[in-house]
Amino acid sequence: MVNYFSSDFKLGILGGGQLGKMMLYETRKYDIHTHVLDPSAEAPCKIACNYFEKGDLMDYDTVLNFGRKADVVTFEIEGVNVDALKKLESEGIKTYPSATTLEKIQNKATQKKFYKEKNISTAPFEVFDSLAFLKESVAKGKIELPFVWKSATGGYDGKGVSVIRKKEDLEKLSSGECIAENLIPFKNELAVIVARNPSGEMITYPVVEMEFHPTANQVEYVICPARIDDKVAEKARKTAEQVSKAFEHVGLLAVEMFQTEADEILVNEVAPRPHNSGHYSIEASYTNQFEQHIRAILDLPLGSTDSKVGGIMVNLVGAEGHEGNVVYENIEKIMKMEGVTPHIYGKKITRPFRKMGHVTIVNKDLAEARKIAEKVKNSIKVISDKD
Amino acid sequence: MVNYFSSDFKLGILGGGQLGKMMLYETRKYDIHTHVLDPSAEAPCKIACNYFEKGDLMDYDTVLNFGRKADVVTFEIEGVNVDALKKLESEGIKTYPSATTLEKIQNKATQKKFYKEKNISTAPFEVFDSLAFLKESVAKGKIELPFVWKSATGGYDGKGVSVIRKKEDLEKLSSGECIAENLIPFKNELAVIVARNPSGEMITYPVVEMEFHPTANQVEYVICPARIDDKVAEKARKTAEQVSKAFEHVGLLAVEMFQTEADEILVNEVAPRPHNSGHYSIEASYTNQFEQHIRAILDLPLGSTDSKVGGIMVNLVGAEGHEGNVVYENIEKIMKMEGVTPHIYGKKITRPFRKMGHVTIVNKDLAEARKIAEKVKNSIKVISDKD
Repeated sequence: MVNYFSSDFKLGILGGGQLGKMMLYETRKYDIHTHVLDPSAEAPCKIACNYFEKGDLMDYDTVLNFGRKADVVTFEIEGVNVDALKKLESEGIKTYPSATTLEKIQNKATQKKFYKEKNISTAPFEVFDSLAFLKESVAKGKIELPFVWKSATGGYDGKGVSVIRKKEDLEKLSSGECIAENLIPFKNELAVIVARNPSGEMITYPVVEMEFHPTANQVEYVICPARIDDKVAEKARKTAEQVSKAFEHVGLLAVEMFQTEADEILVNEVAPRPHNSGHYSIEASYTNQFEQHIRAILDLPLGSTDSKVGGIMVNLVGAEGHEGNVVYENIEKIMKMEGVTPHIYGKKITRPFRKMGHVTIVNKDLAEARKIAEKVKNSIKVISDKD
Repeated sequence: MVNYFSSDFKLGILGGGQLGKMMLYETRKYDIHTHVLDPSAEAPCKIACNYFEKGDLMDYDTVLNFGRKADVVTFEIEGVNVDALKKLESEGIKTYPSATTLEKIQNKATQKKFYKEKNISTAPFEVFDSLAFLKESVAKGKIELPFVWKSATGGYDGKGVSVIRKKEDLEKLSSGECIAENLIPFKNELAVIVARNPSGEMITYPVVEMEFHPTANQVEYVICPARIDDKVAEKARKTAEQVSKAFEHVGLLAVEMFQTEADEILVNEVAPRPHNSGHYSIEASYTNQFEQHIRAILDLPLGSTDSKVGGIMVNLVGAEGHEGNVVYENIEKIMKMEGVTPHIYGKKITRPFRKMGHVTIVNKDLAEARKIAEKVKNSIKVISDKD
C-alpha cells in the first residue's frame, strides 16, 4: 500500500475553514503532507498545513493547478469547481468524494431527484426552474400552502430554506431554481455520519439528535447518542448506509433526517464531508470524524465509531449586535465545568450568528452532560471588544 | 483576566520537538498565538505555530531575544538557557515553569539535594564533583558495589544512568559531576503528573505504571491506571503533590517514582513539562496533559484529570540496524485494532532507538487494552526504506 506517513505523499484539501483546520490536527498526528486552497489569506488552515495557497475554489484553473500538485484531493466545503475535479480524475489524481458524487449533492434539486430515483425515502417535492414558475403553480393552486421552499443552490446554515405559509412569503425569496417540499411535522431531526473507503468498507456513527430551542427555530444542542427508540435509531443508520452506497460515496457523508410523527425516517439532505453534527466525536468517540475522513479517503482501515462517553455539542455563534474583534466572554467559567472543551476556530472578527467555534460537553451520564450543556449555553457569549 | 483566545497575546515555546508539536494541537484548538524556537529547521513544530525561529536553546542572547517577543514563555525541553529566563522574568515576562525551578531540576545533583533538604523521600545518594573522586571513594571502599551512577547533567532517555556492578564498569562513564545512588530493589516504577497554576490550584493525574520488558531492561508499556494497591497509589499522588509544592512549580511536573518491595515511595526524578508517561491522556483523559499544561501556565482553570477509559502507551522507536527514510511497517495492521491510535512525530530519518512516535491503546477494560497493546508491539516496526 501507499506510504502516507512522513513520506512525500501529498494530500490536497479544497477549503481552509474550521473543518479543514480540525482535519489538519489529524494529518499532523499522522504526519501526512498537506496542501490547502482557500480564498482567504486569514483562513483557519493557513498554518498547520505544509503549503497554503490563496485562491478561488470555484475557479476551474485555480482548482486544477492546485490539484495537480497533490496525489489525492478532498474538500471541506461543497462549493468547489466540479469540472476541475473531473479533469483531475481524468488525469489519474484521486478526488474523494468523487466529482460525480459532489455534482449530485451540490444542487438540491438534483439531490432530491436522486433520492426519488434510488427509492430513498424523502419528503414529497416538486422542482421549479425559477421562482416565477413556482409562483405560477401557487397562483393556480397546484401547490398548497404551507410548504417548504428550498433554493437549489447556495443554501448553507439555514440560508436558502424557508417555510411558506402565505403568498406574501414568496416575495422575499431568491429568483433561481428551487424546490417546493411538503411541510412534514416531525418529532426529531436526526443525523448519521457514514464513513466509506474506496475498498467499500463502510461504518456509521451513532445517530445524533438536534435539540431545538423551544421557541426560536434554531438547533441548540447536538446530542450523541440520540435519545430515541433503538428501532428508530437502527432504521436511521440503515437509511444513512443506503444513501452512502447509492452515491458510491468515499469519505464522510453526513446524512440529515427527519423522524416523523409516525416514526418514519425521511432523508432531508446530506453533506459529503466532516459535519457540525460530528464535532462531539473529537472528545467522545474512539475515532473522531476528521481522523475517520482521512482514513476513508486514503483507503486505510476505518476506526471504531463507538463512543467512550456521552457527548453534546453547542455551537458558538456571534451574539446579535456585536461586530468586531472577538471576545469569548466567560470562557474561563465554562472551562471550570466538568468535561467541557471549547474549540475556537480562529476567526478574529465576530458578526451576528457567525460560527466562531463550538463547545463539547462529555460525561458518562448523558443526562448530566445535558445539564452542563445548558449551563455552558447560558454562560459563554461571543461578543466584540468594542463593549 | 487576560484574553488569550484569538487575541494578540503571544506564547513563546522553547523547543520544537514532539512535545511542542502535541502542545500546538491545543494552542490551535484555543487559537492562542504561538512562537517556537528550535535548533533544527526540520523541527516537528515548524508548522502549526504562528512564528518559527531557528536557534540555539542554550544561547543566552538567542533565548532572550526570542522571549522578549512573547508575553509568556514556556519550554518543552529542560536544556534551555536559565540565565536568559531569569533576565526575561526580571523584565516582567512570565516564564513558566520558573527559571529557579528549572535550575533546581536541570542538574540531577542539585535536584537530589533539594529532595533531601525538603524531606522528600528519595534513594540515599552521594554527590561527586567528578568521576575521579567517585573512583577514589570506590577504591577506598567508601562506596559499596553495586550502586547506580548518574551524570549530574546531560542525562536523557536512559543516557547518563548506569548500574555499576564491578569496578571495570566505572571505565565507560563520562568524567563530569555525578551521583552514586543506592541500588534499591523495587516492585514498580510509577509516575504521576501534577498540574499547578500560578494561583496555586493543583491537580494530579492518576498514577501510571511503567511495565518493563521481562528480560531487556526497557519500558515497554505505560499503563493508566497503574495496577497497584489504592493505598500505594494514594501515597504516590501525595508524594507528587509534595514535590510540586516544594518546587513552587507552575505548569506540568512529571514525577517518576519507585515503589519499593516494602511499598515505600521514593522519588527518582522529575520532568518540568509534558511527559512521555502522559501521552495516553490524549485519548484517555477528560483533559489531556498538553491542554492541561497550557491551562496551568496561563492561569486558566485546570481541567479534570479523570480517565474516560483505560489507556496504554507504547513508544515507537527506530528498529536496530535501520537508518534512513522512515517506514512504519504494518501501521495499517494496527489501525485495524480496537481503540488504537498511532502518533507519528514527523521525523523523516529513523535511527536505532530514536523516538519516532507512540501508539495509544484505549479500552473500557484495561486488561483487554493490555492484550491489544502486546499485539501492537508485535506488529508495527519502525524501519528505513532501504530494505
